[in-house]
Amino acid sequence: MAEAKKVAVILGSDSDLPVMMKAVDKLKEFGVGYEMHIMSAHRTPADAMEFAQNAKQNGFGAIIAGAGMAAHLAGALAAQTTLPVIGVPLKSSVLDGMDALLSTVMMPSGIPVATVAINGAANAAVLAMQMLALADETLAKKLDDNRAEMTAGVRAKDQKLQETLNA
Amino acid sequence: MAEAKKVAVILGSDSDLPVMMKAVDKLKEFGVGYEMHIMSAHRTPADAMEFAQNAKQNGFGAIIAGAGMAAHLAGALAAQTTLPVIGVPLKSSVLDGMDALLSTVMMPSGIPVATVAINGAANAAVLAMQMLALADETLAKKLDDNRAEMTAGVRAKDQKLQETLNA
Amino acid sequence: MAEAKKVAVILGSDSDLPVMMKAVDKLKEFGVGYEMHIMSAHRTPADAMEFAQNAKQNGFGAIIAGAGMAAHLAGALAAQTTLPVIGVPLKSSVLDGMDALLSTVMMPSGIPVATVAINGAANAAVLAMQMLALADETLAKKLDDNRAEMTAGVRAKDQKLQETLNA
Amino acid sequence: MAEAKKVAVILGSDSDLPVMMKAVDKLKEFGVGYEMHIMSAHRTPADAMEFAQNAKQNGFGAIIAGAGMAAHLAGALAAQTTLPVIGVPLKSSVLDGMDALLSTVMMPSGIPVATVAINGAANAAVLAMQMLALADETLAKKLDDNRAEMTAGVRAKDQKLQETLNA
Amino acid sequence: MAEAKKVAVILGSDSDLPVMMKAVDKLKEFGVGYEMHIMSAHRTPADAMEFAQNAKQNGFGAIIAGAGMAAHLAGALAAQTTLPVIGVPLKSSVLDGMDALLSTVMMPSGIPVATVAINGAANAAVLAMQMLALADETLAKKLDDNRAEMTAGVRAKDQKLQETLNA
Amino acid sequence: MAEAKKVAVILGSDSDLPVMMKAVDKLKEFGVGYEMHIMSAHRTPADAMEFAQNAKQNGFGAIIAGAGMAAHLAGALAAQTTLPVIGVPLKSSVLDGMDALLSTVMMPSGIPVATVAINGAANAAVLAMQMLALADETLAKKLDDNRAEMTAGVRAKDQKLQETLNA
Amino acid sequence: MAEAKKVAVILGSDSDLPVMMKAVDKLKEFGVGYEMHIMSAHRTPADAMEFAQNAKQNGFGAIIAGAGMAAHLAGALAAQTTLPVIGVPLKSSVLDGMDALLSTVMMPSGIPVATVAINGAANAAVLAMQMLALADETLAKKLDDNRAEMTAGVRAKDQKLQETLNA
Amino acid sequence: MAEAKKVAVILGSDSDLPVMMKAVDKLKEFGVGYEMHIMSAHRTPADAMEFAQNAKQNGFGAIIAGAGMAAHLAGALAAQTTLPVIGVPLKSSVLDGMDALLSTVMMPSGIPVATVAINGAANAAVLAMQMLALADETLAKKLDDNRAEMTAGVRAKDQKLQETLNA
Repeated sequence: MAEAKKVAVILGSDSDLPVMMKAVDKLKEFGVGYEMHIMSAHRTPADAMEFAQNAKQNGFGAIIAGAGMAAHLAGALAAQTTLPVIGVPLKSSVLDGMDALLSTVMMPSGIPVATVAINGAANAAVLAMQMLALADETLAKKLDDNRAEMTAGVRAKDQKLQETLNA
Repeated sequence: MAEAKKVAVILGSDSDLPVMMKAVDKLKEFGVGYEMHIMSAHRTPADAMEFAQNAKQNGFGAIIAGAGMAAHLAGALAAQTTLPVIGVPLKSSVLDGMDALLSTVMMPSGIPVATVAINGAANAAVLAMQMLALADETLAKKLDDNRAEMTAGVRAKDQKLQETLNA
Repeated sequence: MAEAKKVAVILGSDSDLPVMMKAVDKLKEFGVGYEMHIMSAHRTPADAMEFAQNAKQNGFGAIIAGAGMAAHLAGALAAQTTLPVIGVPLKSSVLDGMDALLSTVMMPSGIPVATVAINGAANAAVLAMQMLALADETLAKKLDDNRAEMTAGVRAKDQKLQETLNA
Repeated sequence: MAEAKKVAVILGSDSDLPVMMKAVDKLKEFGVGYEMHIMSAHRTPADAMEFAQNAKQNGFGAIIAGAGMAAHLAGALAAQTTLPVIGVPLKSSVLDGMDALLSTVMMPSGIPVATVAINGAANAAVLAMQMLALADETLAKKLDDNRAEMTAGVRAKDQKLQETLNA
Repeated sequence: MAEAKKVAVILGSDSDLPVMMKAVDKLKEFGVGYEMHIMSAHRTPADAMEFAQNAKQNGFGAIIAGAGMAAHLAGALAAQTTLPVIGVPLKSSVLDGMDALLSTVMMPSGIPVATVAINGAANAAVLAMQMLALADETLAKKLDDNRAEMTAGVRAKDQKLQETLNA
Repeated sequence: MAEAKKVAVILGSDSDLPVMMKAVDKLKEFGVGYEMHIMSAHRTPADAMEFAQNAKQNGFGAIIAGAGMAAHLAGALAAQTTLPVIGVPLKSSVLDGMDALLSTVMMPSGIPVATVAINGAANAAVLAMQMLALADETLAKKLDDNRAEMTAGVRAKDQKLQETLNA
Repeated sequence: MAEAKKVAVILGSDSDLPVMMKAVDKLKEFGVGYEMHIMSAHRTPADAMEFAQNAKQNGFGAIIAGAGMAAHLAGALAAQTTLPVIGVPLKSSVLDGMDALLSTVMMPSGIPVATVAINGAANAAVLAMQMLALADETLAKKLDDNRAEMTAGVRAKDQKLQETLNA
Repeated sequence: MAEAKKVAVILGSDSDLPVMMKAVDKLKEFGVGYEMHIMSAHRTPADAMEFAQNAKQNGFGAIIAGAGMAAHLAGALAAQTTLPVIGVPLKSSVLDGMDALLSTVMMPSGIPVATVAINGAANAAVLAMQMLALADETLAKKLDDNRAEMTAGVRAKDQKLQETLNA
């Protein structure tokens, strides 16, 4: 049996760790293998390029890249692999992440980046797992179960609200 | 052997056909099975919901949804399945698609939409195929070959430019 | 005599409670019946849909929906009822609510959402009551009286300012 | 029996007629009484003010106001009546209607304007009728029927698309 | 000899006092007469209208109006007088004042508002005094002197910086 | 008796002539003296500076400056005179004039620019005349009369609309 | 004597040729050597990288890079050389070039891109020549002369305008 | 041998010192001579103009200008010299620096400003040194070495992250 594919989580800078750890936390919650690396499209472009070129043969099924400002990281990785690359635009000190969003999502024809919400690292992990689950029924089942739990969670909160309102 | 997974291409309105046909054209170019449907998150929500709920068992591996304005379609489909859903924000008569981009990409935690560029229907198809290729080496090979062709194409254009400049 | 219609106040998440309570407070101030529920367009879409479908027969005259980011809630409810639906775009951690505003107001033809200001929950309640007052002269009178009080309030503040400036 | 309430459609300028006629067309389609007037918050403020002050006793149940640029018209009318006022932000020669949208929707506490999409005149009429329908079951029935027709219309377009794709 | 003209400073809400006091402080610094009033385009429209209609005969030469959000105040005053009206767009809790800027500056043909920077209350006072100075050489001289002081102030800061850098 | 003050209309480029002629046309309509010059903050800064420094003694009462893109012209003139300077942000080939608006209106403390709407050249002329009218009752009367004509014009259009609707 | 340095003009796509030819035209006008190439940060990243790495030893003194959408080209080149890299954000079919501007200018610390206006290819060439002129007095003289010509050109246009106005 | 060229760092206001000191710190780190001055395009335009006109003969090779709001400083300096001028758009109390970015980068044809990221003062210094390095191999070597250090720094952080993850 083929070994389960891993997810790569790449950060452009160690200042992005607090947000991007949410991706790792989500992957761990579902028991999906991962590697996390700090690699910069601008400061270590050769490393990033090499990582992406070898990602498939190194057992990765998807790459998550988080970067802020002129966020080239996801696009630079996507240019080196046909694995799906998921971009997380990060909010930095100005412009509320709009610069990173446009730099990540507006990719030219031929090289897509699957972009999630600004600072949406947890959702990036969910999306990566949805991709892996296409060939992994156990993971697919976990994702479905998680949805049911989310539904139950919202219902529980509504129930609690009703009790508060009627108290 | 499992049958190859199909890609669903959903449009919010028939006015979106010209742009969204680029997704279909790309899927056809790679020989990937697809269905295309007009379904609206607001005018036929029950149909959209039912389609998404049954998409996996009906043999789909990814859903592409294109919509403009307050583009809820991709998110509404994503709420009903754990298949990856790819959102194509469409430019409409005002705001250049910025409304659709934000309505598509800024999804809350738990329900991601893999968003591509405004009007990026062709890239949505490429992204869908990158997902399917995780379990389909033949398709993966086609995607890699296509990248090589893109590279060759740019080089040919540069070569032609050099000839023009030196003429 | 027909029983007075109620107003529904729906929140996409319990984190929206502090802002959306201003709608409830305003409704209570005018003695208008209400129900408040946490329901998500993405995490409990079936519940939201069912609520909207039954809202009219359950005695509601208007639905207020508050949501942030890719704020689909108001539109998803509006798709299931011909009761007027009022959308409150909520500010979240990035983009100052512009994402929620565009996701709420830019509805396609046929399914309007009556959108108020970002975080404008109190005004949503006023708008709902203006609608109910079309068939409720007592409520209409209260709204008119309230306007007169607002006018008096501004005049009192101006009077106080004059005293301060002349002190 | 009380006479059916009318809807007022107010335009800031005659250049807004082509877009705002869509509101009138929709009202006519449903057989709802209306008046249409050109009145400007800045060039005929007294007329606009007087119209709004008398709108209720003149048999109106809702006021639709369409204006572009620094679109004050809806807010100026709303300040003079507790009837619900619906604002239609209009696109003008620059900024794609974003100026009108913000000028219309961001009303201060106490004086809401029910804002629809940029150039969304038809939806403004639907929203006005949803309000009137709260006390008019015949109109409510027409709105429900219209929804069913919209659903059927989308399904017919999808059916036609399937035929085209399979041809 | 004609009495010197006064400047009116109008606020939409008492929450705007801290910013708008900078206009008053600047007028006082130059010894220019003023009145300050809280009047709302939406809550006390009649008062605002009456104030503007009588402003000229009451000895005012310019009106400064500060308001946030859908900032209609300056335009509403400008619609009632041919005195120059200066608009100060105020930052509120969302959108950083961009809503107020567009609501103030994008006036339709015929009714201008002289708009200054977001929260630029002090500059509004300077601009008002530049207008009054057209017929008041003493004030004109004060404004010229003030410019010379500003120039000297910047030069002193640069001199101090040189000393710091060379220390 | 003092000679009537003139208005200067300065353009950053001859490509701005079509829009800025509306200011001249309006000044001519009211019989106000003017000069129009092409001067650039960047290509002929010395000329622009000298013009502004001498504008008062050369009989000008206000300066209108129209420029697009990084529109420095109005601010550069304002830095050289205490005459009121009116800025007209001009739309250029990208960004719809938002760049020019922000470059014109967001002036630092001490040096205001009275900014009108994007491409609002006619309103700039009205504003300039409102300033001159502070010391020119004949001009003030003309402005008041013009307002009455505008009001009559809107009413005539409404009257015509009523005839069309009732035809 | 050292050979004069050349300027590289790199385009992300041949569709950018019409705009980017303005850079070449300007370089030719001043007799500065150049090479123009089509290279893509995403489709031929290795070529772009290699070009930048060798640019200095191949006699280039500055690199101009024009790209639209998620414009990574200038940044990708800048990551491979310490030659100054000038970015030209290009307008594409949506968003008026704002995506390209933010993707180009918001570079992280350590790797600057000298960004010019959207579609500002001619200015990119001027800037490149200003850099080369630091070590080339002949070129510096040409740039100074060109400025004088620009000044004369604006003055001639103003002169012509005066003749037209006085005709 | 020619003396090494200096870099000028100009601030529009002493409130910009904390951000702009990062440019000075970077220049000092590389041993590049500099002068820092507070000069305002609006409050001391003559000083700024004179500084730029004499900058070349005073031994400067590049000018860095930092300003916020309607940031005219870089453009005003660029209008007076053919030395390369680098603009640093500064964030002020509203709009997150978008006003300064557009005011700095959108320069008209003929007068470029090399714009860096909002608050990107350190990168402005790097860019200035890249320009000087065109004729200074020692400085070029330092810049190359610095790149190698940045690369090593990112790798060290990644190494530390791996240790943390594996701990």
